[in-house]
Amino acid sequence: MNITAQRRNVSQLLEFNASSSTRARLFDVAMVLLIIANVVAIMLESVVSIEEKYRTEFWIFEIVSIIIFTIEYVLRVWSCPDIEEGKYSDDFKGRLKYMRSIPALIDLAAIAPFFLSLFFVIDLRFLRVFRVFRIFKLTRYSNAMTMLLRVLREESSSFFAAFSILTIVLITAASGIYLIEHDVQPEAFGSIPAAMWWATATLTTVGYGDVTPITPLGKLFGGLITVVGMGMVALPAGILASGFSAQLKKNRSLYRHKLIESLQDGVIDADEKQQLDVLRRELGITEQEAQSLLYTHNQQRQTHHKKCPHCHKDLD
Amino acid sequence: MNITAQRRNVSQLLEFNASSSTRARLFDVAMVLLIIANVVAIMLESVVSIEEKYRTEFWIFEIVSIIIFTIEYVLRVWSCPDIEEGKYSDDFKGRLKYMRSIPALIDLAAIAPFFLSLFFVIDLRFLRVFRVFRIFKLTRYSNAMTMLLRVLREESSSFFAAFSILTIVLITAASGIYLIEHDVQPEAFGSIPAAMWWATATLTTVGYGDVTPITPLGKLFGGLITVVGMGMVALPAGILASGFSAQLKKNRSLYRHKLIESLQDGVIDADEKQQLDVLRRELGITEQEAQSLLYTHNQQRQTHHKKCPHCHKDLD
Amino acid sequence: MNITAQRRNVSQLLEFNASSSTRARLFDVAMVLLIIANVVAIMLESVVSIEEKYRTEFWIFEIVSIIIFTIEYVLRVWSCPDIEEGKYSDDFKGRLKYMRSIPALIDLAAIAPFFLSLFFVIDLRFLRVFRVFRIFKLTRYSNAMTMLLRVLREESSSFFAAFSILTIVLITAASGIYLIEHDVQPEAFGSIPAAMWWATATLTTVGYGDVTPITPLGKLFGGLITVVGMGMVALPAGILASGFSAQLKKNRSLYRHKLIESLQDGVIDADEKQQLDVLRRELGITEQEAQSLLYTHNQQRQTHHKKCPHCHKDLD
Amino acid sequence: MNITAQRRNVSQLLEFNASSSTRARLFDVAMVLLIIANVVAIMLESVVSIEEKYRTEFWIFEIVSIIIFTIEYVLRVWSCPDIEEGKYSDDFKGRLKYMRSIPALIDLAAIAPFFLSLFFVIDLRFLRVFRVFRIFKLTRYSNAMTMLLRVLREESSSFFAAFSILTIVLITAASGIYLIEHDVQPEAFGSIPAAMWWATATLTTVGYGDVTPITPLGKLFGGLITVVGMGMVALPAGILASGFSAQLKKNRSLYRHKLIESLQDGVIDADEKQQLDVLRRELGITEQEAQSLLYTHNQQRQTHHKKCPHCHKDLD
Repeated sequence: MNITAQRRNVSQLLEFNASSSTRARLFDVAMVLLIIANVVAIMLESVVSIEEKYRTEFWIFEIVSIIIFTIEYVLRVWSCPDIEEGKYSDDFKGRLKYMRSIPALIDLAAIAPFFLSLFFVIDLRFLRVFRVFRIFKLTRYSNAMTMLLRVLREESSSFFAAFSILTIVLITAASGIYLIEHDVQPEAFGSIPAAMWWATATLTTVGYGDVTPITPLGKLFGGLITVVGMGMVALPAGILASGFSAQLKKNRSLYRHKLIESLQDGVIDADEKQQLDVLRRELGITEQEAQSLLYTHNQQRQTHHKKCPHCHKDLD
Repeated sequence: MNITAQRRNVSQLLEFNASSSTRARLFDVAMVLLIIANVVAIMLESVVSIEEKYRTEFWIFEIVSIIIFTIEYVLRVWSCPDIEEGKYSDDFKGRLKYMRSIPALIDLAAIAPFFLSLFFVIDLRFLRVFRVFRIFKLTRYSNAMTMLLRVLREESSSFFAAFSILTIVLITAASGIYLIEHDVQPEAFGSIPAAMWWATATLTTVGYGDVTPITPLGKLFGGLITVVGMGMVALPAGILASGFSAQLKKNRSLYRHKLIESLQDGVIDADEKQQLDVLRRELGITEQEAQSLLYTHNQQRQTHHKKCPHCHKDLD
Repeated sequence: MNITAQRRNVSQLLEFNASSSTRARLFDVAMVLLIIANVVAIMLESVVSIEEKYRTEFWIFEIVSIIIFTIEYVLRVWSCPDIEEGKYSDDFKGRLKYMRSIPALIDLAAIAPFFLSLFFVIDLRFLRVFRVFRIFKLTRYSNAMTMLLRVLREESSSFFAAFSILTIVLITAASGIYLIEHDVQPEAFGSIPAAMWWATATLTTVGYGDVTPITPLGKLFGGLITVVGMGMVALPAGILASGFSAQLKKNRSLYRHKLIESLQDGVIDADEKQQLDVLRRELGITEQEAQSLLYTHNQQRQTHHKKCPHCHKDLD
Repeated sequence: MNITAQRRNVSQLLEFNASSSTRARLFDVAMVLLIIANVVAIMLESVVSIEEKYRTEFWIFEIVSIIIFTIEYVLRVWSCPDIEEGKYSDDFKGRLKYMRSIPALIDLAAIAPFFLSLFFVIDLRFLRVFRVFRIFKLTRYSNAMTMLLRVLREESSSFFAAFSILTIVLITAASGIYLIEHDVQPEAFGSIPAAMWWATATLTTVGYGDVTPITPLGKLFGGLITVVGMGMVALPAGILASGFSAQLKKNRSLYRHKLIESLQDGVIDADEKQQLDVLRRELGITEQEAQSLLYTHNQQRQTHHKKCPHCHKDLD
């Protein structure tokens, strides 16, 4: 096998998509498990008692993980000209472009701290915690994250609008409470930025209670601004929820569309079944859900044969 | 009456469904009341002063309940071949299969602790509290729980996606605050798992206030992650709410469909009325709501006049 | 004028509806203002310093209000046979039936405490506070309350389902935390009913922080149950919000329907304008909103003339 | 160039709209940056340590800003007869009317405190904080704020309804807790207005925890009113969220409509592209979103084939 074919094979093994071979899918599962194990290990390592007991094991696991992630990164950069229909086809420039893409930067960030620490003296605890952000390597394998990113991109203007309003409401609340309570609680509302802490905790309805207005006027202002501002601060959350649910609905309707198409000849043959399965995985729909959609469709077909009561012809 | 007919009678008495006989329905009501009484008794028993005063009464009530629940369980296992269209028809294997079904396991869990305590020495308080989970026996009789389970199953992929995002956001928040506040508040943010407590309380907007960031950087990070992450953590709740409301809408439209069908000949006769009633109870629609649907339908018929595109006569 | 005509006049003056005469509407406004003044007065009266200073004024205002509310109640009972198309037409039985209706009971509750206190010795503070519930007399004049009541009635089965789930989740959470933290925090989690306080504050995301789990296991359980249960506890709120918004949409579509009908001949004449106005007030739509609907309709008419691009005939 | 033409030029420079010239848009950007810089400066100035260090710099920046804002205000009043199709065309009365419009009042409020302080002795800190409300000058340039105001106006009747319910629920909660806990916690629940603080914090789910019921009855009432009232207090937030999302959907559908129209001849020429761009900016849609809409439209065209019922040819 020549090098070009080998490179294509590697790229097909590394790339995550719904039509992957079994071998490629096994590799994906192994990588996901390794990333999760890494995150769990780093979290446990932050517990002093555990860290002292299993220091060597943590160290070995870290070295092994770094080696695997480094090989993965090198192979990804090497084989990138074969992915995404030649988007990075140029041997040198294409690879540079790929290295600047978000997933590649996340992969680099997962290993860079280790190599940096070999050459520079860096605060070790800082480094250790940073490794937890390897969790973002999961985004490559997660339909949820892909969907979230798509919602964030598609609703970008809505989010911008909602966050503008949120900022104005927060600043107004913080300035108001600073004006009213500044003199009686200088340690809590000593400046507008300090009052922002109260404003954020209140308007997001977190309400820690470490800082609260104590004057009647402050309480009146606090109550009013909460009742009025709460809704405005919750706007981004609302947009995210409705965007996410719209995306899910779209995915499901896409799948149903394909399902109905496959059912037009009355039966789903082996070929159609495989196509549906690929689509199902791509859209992040569980097998159970797919069956439920099929069931619902069949039921509707039976009940929804609407006919005109006068001429008895089919409607719709 | 031979044993087979008797078994069928028992199964019809025990099974909860909308077309049950009056006797079966009375039995359902009695069981629901007994379960509620059990839960209330166990809750009251946990209050020391009440427990000391009514110890004997609680003990008698417990014994009586255990006897009834045990008989119920034995009868259910015995008569299971007659339910759900022969799903458990085999005398031995079918019963084993039934005993592994969720409702049967809940029924077993309601009585098992008592019998276990007869043979083994188990911490009694632990056992007593566990009895409260008899409340899940209600799921058999509750349309709400059935609907909830259906929503959880139908939206399983959405929930998986939402919980993945939630986990990533929580770990990111906990790691960040651990990095920032670890040195100044070692007792609160001593490890990433410990910091998860703060992250969960904050991002779900519960905000107990037992642990809060105290450094300016910690407060800035806390405020930002709350504003940004809040929406992502609320995604499962949002999906549940919209799934639940979609389910309710579906149920109501199903009922209305049936209602319109029954009204096609202009009148709802006794037979149709009974069918509608069975469906209404199955879908968990109150009588008042059903009347409101009928009223709305009649009103709409007066205002909207659709015509068949073939013969141009009125539809509906 | 004979007594029958007088009674009809009185009933027309008292009844709140959109087609009322100017005199009747003035009376409504006066009553609303009197009720609001009552509520404000009772709230201020609870402030000791204010109460001491203006005791006489409060007393006089109370007596005057009682007299007016008593006359109103007597007149309402007297004239009830003339309202709601003869629903209470019988002179004696009809009046008794009316006195048992919700609005009449609220009216009675607003004056009864005063007369009771004349004959019995009752704790005066208790009585004073009870007077604040005169605020419910506003329900008669408020479209918002009417709409809320309609939503509660129409979605009654959904609310029942949601509250069942809520109860089960709350009991499960309280029992779990009682089991785990009972020994280390006997004062906070001494019994399941006591633990309900924590469960309610946590699952509604209020999170006072007066009681929090302190053991690692308790925190883990608390975090998990919050993330999982939060959504279920928020179900009633979600159902209310979506029911309310559906009701608002329905009202607006009803108004638009009428508007389009009135516009069919191209112009809204004086008669149609008045009818629209009555409907607008009945549905609780502001004048501004009505204008916006008219504007939107006009705009749509201009843009939405869809034609088939091939045969140039109108579609729809 | 004569004065009339100059005035028109000035008005075109000052007015913010989507079809502005490049020069006018640069001016807008500069003004937005200046306003943001002002707000940031005022917030930082409230921090004592920063204020002491950069007192002179803050003072110079303030003077420069005041000069610019004053010139802007004067020019706006001078050139107002040329804006909004002659709404303020009268030289004197038109200008007076313009000066009473909301945006003009905000502009005046941004500079008035400075000039007032020259003539009167006013508490300086009070004045300084008030300057932060210059942030509302941003409303002129923000699509988000325009959208928010439109939602508030269009849903005004819904908001009125929701706030009525909210008020009644809050007063009921406060009165109830006052009645129950007044004697045991006179400092927290000493009067109904004081109890409103607890009621607001609880029903908005903020839950500071500075005041909580301590008697069993108070906790029971608190728990019940939270579970029941929470949803009613969240109504305004829900209405705002759904109104906002409806507005966004409307904007996007308007843009798509225009896009489809432009695509009818198969291609978007330079003229249509510019028109679409103006509309896109007016509606606050990002370029990315617009591309996504175009992409979706193209995809849909391939899958859905509607036919005209008259000539049976393809539509779209």
